[in-house]
Amino acid sequence: MEKFRFLTSGESHGKCLTAIIEGVPSGLEIDIDFINSELHRRQQGYGRGDRMKLESDTVEITSGVRFGKTIGSPITLSVKNRDFENWQKVMSVSPSDQTDDKAFSVYRPGHADYAGSIKYNQQDLRNILERSSARKTAIEVAVGAVAKLILKQIGITGSSEVTQIGAACCPDKFHQEIDLTREKGDSIGGKFVVIYKNIPVGLGSHVHWDRGIDGRLAQAVMSIPAIKAVEIGDNPLGFCGSEYHDEFEIKDGEICRTSNHAGGIEGGMTNGQDLVISAVMKPIPTMMKSLESIDLKTNQKAQAHYERSDVCAVESCAVVAEARVAWVIANEILLKYGSDSIEELKSRVL
Amino acid sequence: MEKFRFLTSGESHGKCLTAIIEGVPSGLEIDIDFINSELHRRQQGYGRGDRMKLESDTVEITSGVRFGKTIGSPITLSVKNRDFENWQKVMSVSPSDQTDDKAFSVYRPGHADYAGSIKYNQQDLRNILERSSARKTAIEVAVGAVAKLILKQIGITGSSEVTQIGAACCPDKFHQEIDLTREKGDSIGGKFVVIYKNIPVGLGSHVHWDRGIDGRLAQAVMSIPAIKAVEIGDNPLGFCGSEYHDEFEIKDGEICRTSNHAGGIEGGMTNGQDLVISAVMKPIPTMMKSLESIDLKTNQKAQAHYERSDVCAVESCAVVAEARVAWVIANEILLKYGSDSIEELKSRVL
Amino acid sequence: MEKFRFLTSGESHGKCLTAIIEGVPSGLEIDIDFINSELHRRQQGYGRGDRMKLESDTVEITSGVRFGKTIGSPITLSVKNRDFENWQKVMSVSPSDQTDDKAFSVYRPGHADYAGSIKYNQQDLRNILERSSARKTAIEVAVGAVAKLILKQIGITGSSEVTQIGAACCPDKFHQEIDLTREKGDSIGGKFVVIYKNIPVGLGSHVHWDRGIDGRLAQAVMSIPAIKAVEIGDNPLGFCGSEYHDEFEIKDGEICRTSNHAGGIEGGMTNGQDLVISAVMKPIPTMMKSLESIDLKTNQKAQAHYERSDVCAVESCAVVAEARVAWVIANEILLKYGSDSIEELKSRVL
Amino acid sequence: MEKFRFLTSGESHGKCLTAIIEGVPSGLEIDIDFINSELHRRQQGYGRGDRMKLESDTVEITSGVRFGKTIGSPITLSVKNRDFENWQKVMSVSPSDQTDDKAFSVYRPGHADYAGSIKYNQQDLRNILERSSARKTAIEVAVGAVAKLILKQIGITGSSEVTQIGAACCPDKFHQEIDLTREKGDSIGGKFVVIYKNIPVGLGSHVHWDRGIDGRLAQAVMSIPAIKAVEIGDNPLGFCGSEYHDEFEIKDGEICRTSNHAGGIEGGMTNGQDLVISAVMKPIPTMMKSLESIDLKTNQKAQAHYERSDVCAVESCAVVAEARVAWVIANEILLKYGSDSIEELKSRVL
Repeated sequence: MEKFRFLTSGESHGKCLTAIIEGVPSGLEIDIDFINSELHRRQQGYGRGDRMKLESDTVEITSGVRFGKTIGSPITLSVKNRDFENWQKVMSVSPSDQTDDKAFSVYRPGHADYAGSIKYNQQDLRNILERSSARKTAIEVAVGAVAKLILKQIGITGSSEVTQIGAACCPDKFHQEIDLTREKGDSIGGKFVVIYKNIPVGLGSHVHWDRGIDGRLAQAVMSIPAIKAVEIGDNPLGFCGSEYHDEFEIKDGEICRTSNHAGGIEGGMTNGQDLVISAVMKPIPTMMKSLESIDLKTNQKAQAHYERSDVCAVESCAVVAEARVAWVIANEILLKYGSDSIEELKSRVL
Repeated sequence: MEKFRFLTSGESHGKCLTAIIEGVPSGLEIDIDFINSELHRRQQGYGRGDRMKLESDTVEITSGVRFGKTIGSPITLSVKNRDFENWQKVMSVSPSDQTDDKAFSVYRPGHADYAGSIKYNQQDLRNILERSSARKTAIEVAVGAVAKLILKQIGITGSSEVTQIGAACCPDKFHQEIDLTREKGDSIGGKFVVIYKNIPVGLGSHVHWDRGIDGRLAQAVMSIPAIKAVEIGDNPLGFCGSEYHDEFEIKDGEICRTSNHAGGIEGGMTNGQDLVISAVMKPIPTMMKSLESIDLKTNQKAQAHYERSDVCAVESCAVVAEARVAWVIANEILLKYGSDSIEELKSRVL
Repeated sequence: MEKFRFLTSGESHGKCLTAIIEGVPSGLEIDIDFINSELHRRQQGYGRGDRMKLESDTVEITSGVRFGKTIGSPITLSVKNRDFENWQKVMSVSPSDQTDDKAFSVYRPGHADYAGSIKYNQQDLRNILERSSARKTAIEVAVGAVAKLILKQIGITGSSEVTQIGAACCPDKFHQEIDLTREKGDSIGGKFVVIYKNIPVGLGSHVHWDRGIDGRLAQAVMSIPAIKAVEIGDNPLGFCGSEYHDEFEIKDGEICRTSNHAGGIEGGMTNGQDLVISAVMKPIPTMMKSLESIDLKTNQKAQAHYERSDVCAVESCAVVAEARVAWVIANEILLKYGSDSIEELKSRVL
Repeated sequence: MEKFRFLTSGESHGKCLTAIIEGVPSGLEIDIDFINSELHRRQQGYGRGDRMKLESDTVEITSGVRFGKTIGSPITLSVKNRDFENWQKVMSVSPSDQTDDKAFSVYRPGHADYAGSIKYNQQDLRNILERSSARKTAIEVAVGAVAKLILKQIGITGSSEVTQIGAACCPDKFHQEIDLTREKGDSIGGKFVVIYKNIPVGLGSHVHWDRGIDGRLAQAVMSIPAIKAVEIGDNPLGFCGSEYHDEFEIKDGEICRTSNHAGGIEGGMTNGQDLVISAVMKPIPTMMKSLESIDLKTNQKAQAHYERSDVCAVESCAVVAEARVAWVIANEILLKYGSDSIEELKSRVL
C-alpha cells in the first residue's frame, strides 16, 4: 500500500474535478493560497488558448483539514469547472437530459478517442474526450501542491523550466517559435526540466525493480498526457564512462561530487544531489489545421474535429510534471520515514 | 492487485537467483528451451567481458508446472550462479564464515554503493553491490520469457535492436566504437528500441494516471540498471503537430494509420499499432580507467574499485528491456481479459 | 491493482462525505434512487437515536456518469451532512475560525480516541472522533450500492438479516431487548448474517493466501466499526467432519450439495452455493451510562463524554456489511472477467 | 506497496516450497535454528498423521542474508519436501513424464477440488489438491518466523493456545476427544487463540477502512485453510456496553485499562494492550469415513478419495495463525516506522 495515495475524478466539462488524498500526516498546515497559486501557474504560459482565461481555478477543501491543519483523515480537494453552467445539459448525469448536442464521432489522431471508444464501447467520442482531456491535470496539480507542502516541511523544494520549444533551444526564441506555429494553424511541443533540491540520500532502492525511484518518476511523468520521452539527469549518448560518472570529492569536510550527470539517482536511489528529470511533450493534437480521419458512424473519411485553441502547452505541462514528481517524492519520504504526524516526520528526517 | 506479479531475489555471487511468479493462467505450455534461449541472448553481445562466458545460464522450475503445463499455482524459477563454489565462503549465509575477503569500501561513481550503504547502514559495500549488480537481470529475463509465452498464445511477439552505440548511429560502426573504447580502458553506452507486434486495442487507460500503459512501460524500462532515458514512439522534438499525429485511413476496408509516430500508444492506451519503446543506457560505471572517489573507512580520497570487464552491454540491456515490456503487456492483458486458464484467455482475445 | 478501487473521505460533522470509485465498467446504468434507498436502509433500525432522523441521506454524483450511464471514468459520489450549518464554525477548514468549542479530551473506552490521539499527535479528541465515527459508513453504503448495480447485471443479489440482539436469538424478542437496554441507559450489540445468491464458481483462489475470497471478505467485514467477530458459513464448533462437509449429489442432472455449512466457500473460492457471512457487533461504546476514563489534559480520572444516543445499531451495521461484501464480490468479478464495459462483462459471465 | 511483502510457492508433493520476502530491514540477525523450531512446532500436535513424522522440515536460505544478517535485499527461503523422490515422476515438470498415476477425479467435499477444477480448467484434481493442501503453510510459518525475528528486536512476542477441540473446552479432555474421533474414522476441528504482547499504540488506523489492523488480521487468519471464524478479543455477544468496553485507570502513574475485552484493538488501531485474536478451524475434510461425491469424468456418484490421516490439526493451525499475525504486525510496524535498517527501527520505536 502506498503511503501517499489518491484518486482523482472529473470530466473536462463536468461539474467539478475532485481528488481524495489518503495518507497525509496530521499536523500539516494547508496553505490554500499556495495550492491556488500552483493552479494559477498551470494556467499560464505563452501559447495557451482562451479557455485558460475562463478558468482561473481555485480549490475547495471539504475534508481532512480542520483549523488549517490536517488531522490524519483523507483530504478532499475539488476544483469547479467555471463554464459548467453552459454545459450542464450536455454533461448531465441524468438519463432524462440525453441529447446529441456536442456528440462527435470522428477520431482525432493523437488522442484517446479511437482506442478509448473501442475499449469502453462508446459511440459518442465525447464520453472519451471528457476524461482524456488535459483538464484533469488541474486537480493533479492541486494534489501535487499538497505533496509539496509536506516536502517543504523538511526543506525539499522543486521548480521547472522549459528548455526547448520545437527546434528552438534558446529561451529568447520560444515566443517566436510559438507565434510562427500559430500563424500556420499548427501546434508545437517541446522539452522541460524539473529539479528538486535538498533530497535525502536513499529514497527508492536497488533491491527490487519496482522500488527504484527512477522507474517511479518515469511512470509519473510519462503518463502525463502528451509526454513521449523522459530522461533522468543528462542523456548519456555521446559520453564515455570516464566522462559521465559523477566522481566523489571532499569539500569542506563533506563528501560531494564534481558533477551531476546522473540527475541525483544511482542504483534506483537518490544520492543527495539535485533530482533532475526532463521530459518531451508532443505537439498538442488538436489544432486549426485539420487531420485526416474516419467517422466511426459511417466508417468513411472525415476531418478530425477541432475543439481547442492552444498552440503550445509545454510551460503548463512542466508545472504538471513538477506536481507529479512531488507525489513520488512525498510517497518515498513517507515510505522511508513512515510518519503519522508532521512532527514525527520532522524529528526523523532532520 | 496486479495479475502477473512476481518477486525476484539473489545476489550476484550468491548461490542462485530465484523468482516466484503468481497469476499465470493454467494450461500454459512452459517451453524451458525457450526460457534458456532468452537467458542465452542476454549473455551475448559484442563488448561483454569474461564472466558472461562462465555463466551460460539455465533455469530450473520447482513449482507451478506439471507435465509441461502451468496449473495455476505460483511458478518458481531459479538460475544457479555457476561460479558460486569459488564464492561460497565470501557469500556465506552463516555468521561463522564471516571474513573480510572481498570486502570493499571505496564508493564506485555511478553505482548504488554510496546511497545504498547509507540507506542500509552497511560498511562493506559488497552488501550493496551484490544486489545492485546487473546480474539480477538474468532472472528478470526468465520471468519475461514466461510472460512472452503467455503473449505468444495470443499472437503477440516482441524483438529489440540496438540503434546507437556512443556517437555511432550506424550498425556498421558499432563494433569499431566498442573496440576503440576498450583500447582506451573506458566504457560506452547506447540506445536500443523494443518493438511488440499484434497488440490488442485498449491495453492501459486514459481514465486514471496510474492506468496509463505508457507510464507502466516507462517505469519498467527506466528502472533497468543504467537506463537514463525512455521514449515511446518517435521523439516529437522537431515535429509540428500536423506532422507528428498519425492520421487515419481506410485500407482494404480496415481502419489503419499512415504513420506510427506515437509508438502505438495514444491517451495511455494501445491503439493497435506496433508498440515501440526506446531507451538510452549510460556507459557501464565499472571500467579499467579509474575514477576519483572516497574510502568510507578513512573518509579520504581513493580510486574506485575495479571489478568487471564489460565495455558495453547495450545489446544485453535490450534483451532485458524486451523481457520487462513483456511483463507489462502480460499484466495488462490479464487485467483486461482476466483469465484463469489459457483456454479462457484465447477465447476472450481471439 | 484492484479492479474496483475507491477512496472515501469526510468527517462526521464536516461539509460532506465523498467517494471516488475507479474501475467501474462503462455502460452501467446508475440508478440514483437505488443508491438513495440503500442509504435510507442504513438509517433505519430499531434502537437508533435522533440524528438518524435528521440525516435522510441522498447522494450526488459529480463525475463518471453521463445520461444515466457510466462512461469508464472515475465516479464521484457525495453525501451532504445536513446538520453542517450548525457545525460550520467548529469544523472549519480555515485557521482563522479556530475555537475550543466542542473540543474534548476524555478518552471514550471502546473508541479510537486514545490510540488515535497518540498516533496522530492530537490534543483535541474531536480530530479523531470526527473520522472514526460510524458516520463514514454512509458513503461506504453508497459505494456498495454501485457495486450492487454491477452485480445485478449478472444476476447476483444480496440481503442481510439480524440474527441476535444481546442474548436474544429470537426476532420477536429483539425490540424488547433493545427497550430494556435503553431503560438502563446502556447499549447492546448483536449478530447478523449477509447472504449473496447466484455467485459464479471460482471467485478467489487457493493458490496464494491473499487471493482467498474468505480472507478478503473477512477483512471487509471485520474492519467495519464495532465488528469483533466474523464467520463464513456455519461455525464448525460442535460438528465432526462427516457432519460438516457439504456432500455432492446430482439433482435434475445438475451437480449440487446436500447442505451449505461452508457458506459457499471452499479452498478460498466460491463454489456456486450461496455466500453466507455472519458478524458480531459489539455494543455501541457511547451510551448514557458513563464509563471510567482519563482526561488527557490533566492525566486525571474523568467520565467519558456522551455524544450520541443510539442504543443498538445492528440492523444498520448489517446494511453496511452487505455493502462491503458487494465491494469484494464486484472486485473479484472484475478480476476474473476483467471487463471494460458492462456489455463485455455480461458476454463473459452469462 | 506493502513494506513486508512476499510470495510463496510449492506443491504438496513437489520438490520444495519457496518464499521470497522483500522489505526486511538490513542488519537483522537471522537465527535459522529459530525458523526451524517454528517449522517443528507446526508439525507437532496430538491428532496429526504419519506424514508429519516423515517431514521434519528445515529451511534453507539462498539470498538476502550474509554472515548471519540481512543486507536489505530479498530473502529466499526454501523447505524441501523430503518425500519428493517417491513423487518425482508423478509431480514432474517435464511433459515427457506425463502419467495418470495418482490422478483423481472425485471431488472431495470441503476442499478446493470442485471450484478449483472449474476455475483452472483441470481434469486431474491433483493439479488443484497439490497447491490447496495445507502443506503450503510450512513455508508460511518460515516467513512468519522471519517476521517474528523483526518483532523480537523491538520486544514484541507472540504465542498461541488451543482453547477448544470439538465440544471440549477443557484442555484435559482434548486428547480424549481426538481419540474418540479417530476411532470413529472421523475428523474434528476446534478453536485457538493467538496473543501478541508489547505492541506499540497506533498500528493500523481509523482513517480508511483498509488501514484497519483488525481487518488485516482477519484477512490473514480467515484465509488459512480450514478456518471459518475469527474473533478479535472477547466475543461481545451477551455483554452490554457498560460491561464490554475497557475502562481507563491510572496505575503507578501509567494509563492502563481494567480489562481487555477489545483484544487490544479500538477504532482499527492497536491500543497498547495485548493483541488477542481467536479462530475456529473446521474438521479436516479428508477422513477415513467416506463422503458422498461425484466423479467429474463420469458425472456419476462416487466416494470421495482418501489421502491423508490427520484427525485433528488445530494445534498446528494455531502455529500457522501465529505466523500470519506476525506478518501483519511486522508490516504495520514497518509502515509506521518505515525503517531501512534494524538499527534505525530500534531507534524509532524504543
